[in-house]
Amino acid sequence: MNNFNFFSPTEFVFGKDRENEVGVFVKKYGGTKVLIHYGRGSAVRSGLLDRVKASLDKEGVSYVELGGVMPNPRDSKVYEGIDIVRKEGIDFILAVGGGSTIDSAKAIAAGSVYDGDFWDFYSYKTSIKKALPVGTVLSIAAAGSEGSGDSVITKEDGMLKRGTGADALRPKFSVMNPELLFTLPSYQTACGATDIMAHVFERYFTNTKEVEITDRLCEAVLMTMIKETPRVIADPTNYEARANIMWAGTVAHTNIVGVGRDQDWNSHGIEHELSAMYDCAHGAGLAVIMPAWMEFVYKHDVMRFAQVAVRVWGVKMDFFNPEKTAVEGIRRFRMFLRSIGMPINFKELGADVKDIPEMVSKMGIDGETGGFVHLKPEDVAKIYEIAAEAEL
Amino acid sequence: MNNFNFFSPTEFVFGKDRENEVGVFVKKYGGTKVLIHYGRGSAVRSGLLDRVKASLDKEGVSYVELGGVMPNPRDSKVYEGIDIVRKEGIDFILAVGGGSTIDSAKAIAAGSVYDGDFWDFYSYKTSIKKALPVGTVLSIAAAGSEGSGDSVITKEDGMLKRGTGADALRPKFSVMNPELLFTLPSYQTACGATDIMAHVFERYFTNTKEVEITDRLCEAVLMTMIKETPRVIADPTNYEARANIMWAGTVAHTNIVGVGRDQDWNSHGIEHELSAMYDCAHGAGLAVIMPAWMEFVYKHDVMRFAQVAVRVWGVKMDFFNPEKTAVEGIRRFRMFLRSIGMPINFKELGADVKDIPEMVSKMGIDGETGGFVHLKPEDVAKIYEIAAEAEL
Repeated sequence: MNNFNFFSPTEFVFGKDRENEVGVFVKKYGGTKVLIHYGRGSAVRSGLLDRVKASLDKEGVSYVELGGVMPNPRDSKVYEGIDIVRKEGIDFILAVGGGSTIDSAKAIAAGSVYDGDFWDFYSYKTSIKKALPVGTVLSIAAAGSEGSGDSVITKEDGMLKRGTGADALRPKFSVMNPELLFTLPSYQTACGATDIMAHVFERYFTNTKEVEITDRLCEAVLMTMIKETPRVIADPTNYEARANIMWAGTVAHTNIVGVGRDQDWNSHGIEHELSAMYDCAHGAGLAVIMPAWMEFVYKHDVMRFAQVAVRVWGVKMDFFNPEKTAVEGIRRFRMFLRSIGMPINFKELGADVKDIPEMVSKMGIDGETGGFVHLKPEDVAKIYEIAAEAEL
Repeated sequence: MNNFNFFSPTEFVFGKDRENEVGVFVKKYGGTKVLIHYGRGSAVRSGLLDRVKASLDKEGVSYVELGGVMPNPRDSKVYEGIDIVRKEGIDFILAVGGGSTIDSAKAIAAGSVYDGDFWDFYSYKTSIKKALPVGTVLSIAAAGSEGSGDSVITKEDGMLKRGTGADALRPKFSVMNPELLFTLPSYQTACGATDIMAHVFERYFTNTKEVEITDRLCEAVLMTMIKETPRVIADPTNYEARANIMWAGTVAHTNIVGVGRDQDWNSHGIEHELSAMYDCAHGAGLAVIMPAWMEFVYKHDVMRFAQVAVRVWGVKMDFFNPEKTAVEGIRRFRMFLRSIGMPINFKELGADVKDIPEMVSKMGIDGETGGFVHLKPEDVAKIYEIAAEAEL
C-alpha cells in the first residue's frame, strides 16, 4: 500500500426533505451572503430553488442568484460568477444542481479569492491554496463532486476541458435528498450511474499490489450499482434504489475507495475530448470509452481483470484460461451499459472517426499518460478506434 | 434508507514513517502546547515517543507528558489529565497509543473545557458540545477511535464502563503507520481484529430494509479482515497485511459503512460488563459474546444471517433450508476466531457463570436494549449462558 493522506471533511446531510435545512448549514459554516448557483432551470421549475431560498430566508441569510450553468460547464459563467461575488461581497457559494453546477461553483469559489485568472488553476500554472466556502444541494447522482475536491471546466475558446483539485474545494456540506432525483430522465440517470462506476474502475485498475481493503470497497460500490441502476431505470421514483445509488456515488469519489494505490484516469482523459468535441454527456462518453480502454489494456494484468469479472460480474473463473474470464468481465460491463440505455460505440454516441486525430492532438499528451498502463498518443488513437466500432 | 448526517473531518496521515510529521499536523490544527498522552510504556520502549517529541521540537511546539493509561481506561487518569491541562494551559491533546489512550485523550479534551464533572458525559447527564482538539498517533488497529467521535471510560468506583460520542471528539488528524504494529503480540493483534469485525457486525444486523450500499461496504471490510488477519498472525511484520487491517479498522468505525440504517450494539454493551468485571481485553470479550448473541437472535432475520454466511463466509446457500446456511455462517465466525487464538467461551476467557446475574444487573437495562433485537435482562442472561458453554 502506498502512503497517503485522506481528508474528507464534508458534512453530508442525507435524506428526505433535507433541503429545507440548507439555511441552517450555510449559517453553521459561516455564510452570511450567498451566491446561489444553478443550471438551466430544472431547479426553478421543480420548486427546489424556492425551498432553498425559503430556508435561507428563515435563517436570515441573504443571497444573489446566478443560473444558467451548462453541462460541461464553461469558463464564461465562472468569470460572470467571480464578478458578482466581488461586486456583491459574497462569502459563500451554494451550488444547487449536479456535477456541472458544483464544479462551476468551486471554480468561482477559488477564482474569487485569487488575484490572477482562475484558468491558471485549470491550465496547471498554479495550485489552489484557498477558496470561499462551498455548499451543495445535489440533484443528480453522478460526478461525486459533492464530496470531492475536484472541478472540471471547459474553456470555450478551443473547447478545452480541464480539471483541477484541492482540499480547499471540498464542500463544507452537501445536502442529498434522493427524492430530488425522481424526475431525472432515464438517460441522465444512466449517464450518472456510468460515471459513478467509472470513478471506481479508474481506481480499481492499479499496479499497486495487495490493496485488498480498497479492492473490496471498490467492488462493494460496483455491485451496488449493478443491482440498483436497473431498478431506477424501471421505476424512477424508487426511493430506496435512488438512495443507494446516491450514497454510492459519493463513496465512489471522496477517494475512500482509492487511497493507498496508484490510479489510472486515462478513460476520463480520453472521454473529456469526446464531450468537449460533441458536447455529449460525460457518462455517455465513458460508456463508449471505458470498455474500449479495458480491451486495449487488459493483457497488462489479466488476473486483475479476472478478479473483477469473478467478484463483481459473477463470471465463473476459467482456471485453464483466465484471459477468457477477463474478457467475459469486459463483455458483461458493456452488456450492462447497453441494458441501461447507454451508447457503446461512436455511432450511438454521435461521434465520428474522422475527428480522432484532432481529439488525440487536443489531449496534449506529453510523452505518456495514465497510472495503470502508460499510453502514447497512438495508443489513445487505437482506443478511440476500438470504441468507434464496438458491438456486443 | 434512514435519513442521516455523516461527518468525518479527521485528516488521516497513513504510511511508513509518518509519525515524523506529527509536529506539522499539530501546528496545522492550532496546537501550541500539547499534552502527550500515552499508555504503559511500550511507546517509550519502542522509541516512538522520542520520534514524536523530536517532531514537535522541530516545529517549536512545547509539550507536557502524561503516560500510564490502562486498557479499559480509568476515570482517575482522566481527572489527572484535566488538572494538568488546566494548570499548564494546554491547547491540544495528542494521544500516542491505541483505543484506550485515544478514548482517555478525548475525555480529557472534553472535560477540560467543561465546568462540571466530565463523568456527566458518560452517565448521560449532558452531551458534549465542545472539546480541545485531539490528534492521534495510532499503535494498534482495533477500536477505530482514531476516526470516530466515540470514547469509552471505566469509572473505578464500581467499575462502571460507559461510552459517549460527539462530533467535537473526532480527531483533527490521525497518524497511522502500519510498521508501528509489527511488535504487537499475536493475542493483541487478534483482539484488535475481533473488535474491528464486531464494529461491522453491530452495523450489519439491522431492521432497515434495502441498504445494499452499506451492506456491501460492511461485507468488504469483513472479507478483508478474514483474508488479512491470519497473515499478520503468521507474520507480524507483514506490512501489506498490517496496512490493510489498519485502514479496514478505520473504515469500520467512522460510520461510513453504517449510515442510513438502524444499528444494534448489544454485543458491545454485553461485552463491556465482561471487561469491566474481569479486566479482559475488549476484543477477547467480543469473541466470546458476539457469536453467542448471533445464536440467540438469528431467527429474527434468517435471510440476513444467510446473506452474510454466503457473501462473507463463502457458505453455499441451502435454498431448501436457509436456517442451516445462517447457522453455518455463525459457526464459521467462531472457527475463525479460534483459528486466530481468541477465546470462545467463559472458561477460555477466565469468566465465571456465577457472575452473570451481577453483570446483567450492572448493565442497568431500562426495559429493553438494542437496535436489531430488543433484549430484556433475562435475554442478556441467556446470551451470557450460551457464551459460557460455547464450543465449536
